[in-house]
Amino acid sequence: MRNIAVDGERLWRDLMEIGRIGETAKGGCHRLALSAEDGHARDLFCRWMREAGCTITVDGIGNIFARREGRDPARPPVMVGSHLDTVPLGGKFDGIAGVLAAVEVVRTLNDRAIRTEAPIEVVVWTNEEGSRFSPFTMGSQVFAGQQSLDAMLARRELLDPERGATVGEALDRIGYRGTAPVGGRKPGCYFELHIEQGPEMARDDAEIGIVTGSFEARYFVATVEGEQAHVGPTPMAVRHDALVAASRLILEIDRIGRAHGVDGRANAPHLELHPNVRGVIPGRVMVSCDVRHRDHATLGRMHGDLVMAAQMVERVHGVTVTLEQYGEFGPVAFDPGMVALLRDTAASLGYRHRDILTVAGHDAVPLNTICPAGMIFCASRAGGISHNEREWSEPADVAAGANVLAQAVLARAGVVPD
Amino acid sequence: MRNIAVDGERLWRDLMEIGRIGETAKGGCHRLALSAEDGHARDLFCRWMREAGCTITVDGIGNIFARREGRDPARPPVMVGSHLDTVPLGGKFDGIAGVLAAVEVVRTLNDRAIRTEAPIEVVVWTNEEGSRFSPFTMGSQVFAGQQSLDAMLARRELLDPERGATVGEALDRIGYRGTAPVGGRKPGCYFELHIEQGPEMARDDAEIGIVTGSFEARYFVATVEGEQAHVGPTPMAVRHDALVAASRLILEIDRIGRAHGVDGRANAPHLELHPNVRGVIPGRVMVSCDVRHRDHATLGRMHGDLVMAAQMVERVHGVTVTLEQYGEFGPVAFDPGMVALLRDTAASLGYRHRDILTVAGHDAVPLNTICPAGMIFCASRAGGISHNEREWSEPADVAAGANVLAQAVLARAGVVPD
Repeated sequence: MRNIAVDGERLWRDLMEIGRIGETAKGGCHRLALSAEDGHARDLFCRWMREAGCTITVDGIGNIFARREGRDPARPPVMVGSHLDTVPLGGKFDGIAGVLAAVEVVRTLNDRAIRTEAPIEVVVWTNEEGSRFSPFTMGSQVFAGQQSLDAMLARRELLDPERGATVGEALDRIGYRGTAPVGGRKPGCYFELHIEQGPEMARDDAEIGIVTGSFEARYFVATVEGEQAHVGPTPMAVRHDALVAASRLILEIDRIGRAHGVDGRANAPHLELHPNVRGVIPGRVMVSCDVRHRDHATLGRMHGDLVMAAQMVERVHGVTVTLEQYGEFGPVAFDPGMVALLRDTAASLGYRHRDILTVAGHDAVPLNTICPAGMIFCASRAGGISHNEREWSEPADVAAGANVLAQAVLARAGVVPD
Repeated sequence: MRNIAVDGERLWRDLMEIGRIGETAKGGCHRLALSAEDGHARDLFCRWMREAGCTITVDGIGNIFARREGRDPARPPVMVGSHLDTVPLGGKFDGIAGVLAAVEVVRTLNDRAIRTEAPIEVVVWTNEEGSRFSPFTMGSQVFAGQQSLDAMLARRELLDPERGATVGEALDRIGYRGTAPVGGRKPGCYFELHIEQGPEMARDDAEIGIVTGSFEARYFVATVEGEQAHVGPTPMAVRHDALVAASRLILEIDRIGRAHGVDGRANAPHLELHPNVRGVIPGRVMVSCDVRHRDHATLGRMHGDLVMAAQMVERVHGVTVTLEQYGEFGPVAFDPGMVALLRDTAASLGYRHRDILTVAGHDAVPLNTICPAGMIFCASRAGGISHNEREWSEPADVAAGANVLAQAVLARAGVVPD
């Protein structure tokens, strides 16, 4: 195996530098998709990649491709990347570490004057988080043909559905509505490094997680319709308070997550509350919620429990609850050849590694539908907390992942003999 | 008793006309304080009052005073009025019926060429509802010296605390930041007609409610601090989900309201949820809540139950809950002379009437601290539902209230002999 160890110090320095764009008081990062801060981070990425000799292309949904040409430009590129957007008050690693590791792979190849047979494209996908605009992994889904470009460009900000910008307007504002067609081409393969975002690897003291696939997840909006009324004169006995009913549903969802073993997850993190003022009993609440499990049959039972919980809330509170599924993902099985390559690479480099499933969605999930895709996790510290300003990985954690990534990219791209 | 029956048809016609400003699809009214619609309703009120020969004054918080001069301009005026703003998707009666009944009193006196000793001022108070800007009864509180003008002008929109307008800016936009000093003068007395907004009067088939006083109410913000984290990889067992904890608190608040007899009320109608996105376990939720009862000792127990509920939620969910009281009102006892006058007037006119307490705050509450104040309720139909598009009173209900109001105003203002 050729020695192409990355420069871990350079990688860390630039990861910290790009993390200053949107940096928060507690050392995290607040950089919502297509915000001014996202634009600045994209600008810095493009500057770095041009300095590294790459050609930049931006497509119609704002995905950025930095291409290092191969000996044979006709070969489909080896793609490697992740995202630069964060959740509100998030960390400096989620997504960003994957982009910076890919940047470091290119720089390392440059340092060692290694030419590859196939081109390498470092990718920044638009709006992976789905915090400002729904759905998550928007850019990679459009690229993979799972969402229509026009529909996504028209999506409006979730937090301000009346006055907020559309995706198209937000792209225009930061200058990243590109002219390249979105998708319509198959990469040779796709690699993504990501932080784990959970506590599993720490239990085994693993340095590298080989992501073999994903949990299964189903996403819903539960609309609770009660009766808006005055908080004062309305007797308790005649109320149909949609928020009280929604609160019961949220507790039930939490219970469902806990009732199905360590692999159960159930979430209700997002509400739209009407009218949400101090003097009025809420008449309508929309609860975004989801259930997740690694086992398909168990997930079906959790889904059934959710339906029953909605019916119970209807009976107890005299409201109506409409449950509408708006998305799903998984179970994904990543390409076996890619999994084997990443596992063998980690072993050859002497890293403690283990197989792992992702519970969260990642850009590698849509990519896996159009080309062989593979993911590695590097270690998350602080108990694996993520989507939090305290999210943390050590310099050595990120460098280990980048080293595996470099070897695997090279194996797939092919080295041109000196 | 002089016959000064109001023109019920004219009163109803103009009540319906002003209700078209901000009218909703279901026949309600959406006219938030100091919105463009509120401005248009104010314009219409001012035009009507000028046509009725009144002089318009607007003070620094936007309260409007339409003065019908008395024989003795030096006498303190008899004030009578209410508010023109509504809650989101509210009705056409709450507040508005009180303003229109006062308009009709002046028109009736004009029709019959009745001069009064004291001036009469028909008042529109700014932001009674407190939906867009906190607190409720803002204009009447500043007038009564209970809030500072500068502090209230600086209050920003509750629903958009970052980008929203201040009260001062919103007043400027609709042209109702007046030049008259706010308050600093004592009315001779204050009358307010309001719809009941509850089911009590219907039980006794009462046409007029004589409001002798109010419930006691205490208002809080409960801040629940958990730990923001990723919805996917974070195991259920290690979560500190602030929204799950807040949901438990909301159910407890509802339980407290039901556990203290028919006069118990406990509400939690308004939330601020952070970050309120689909991929992140909420780290912080602020819940506006209140407890109300007619009995002071019982209210104290409800307050104690709320404190204990907050402590229980802390223990069960591993979060912190900080309970901060931001307001209170009552128990109010309206001026006994005003109560007796209104009761005797209703009886003399042959209306079925009963004494009643208000559970909600009204502009008469701050006014009662600076002059004798009295309130009457007219009947609410549709089960007494209010703060809802279905809020309804019949033409005869409003006319009955206006007849009582006309007699009582005349009794206090004094008739100049022909």
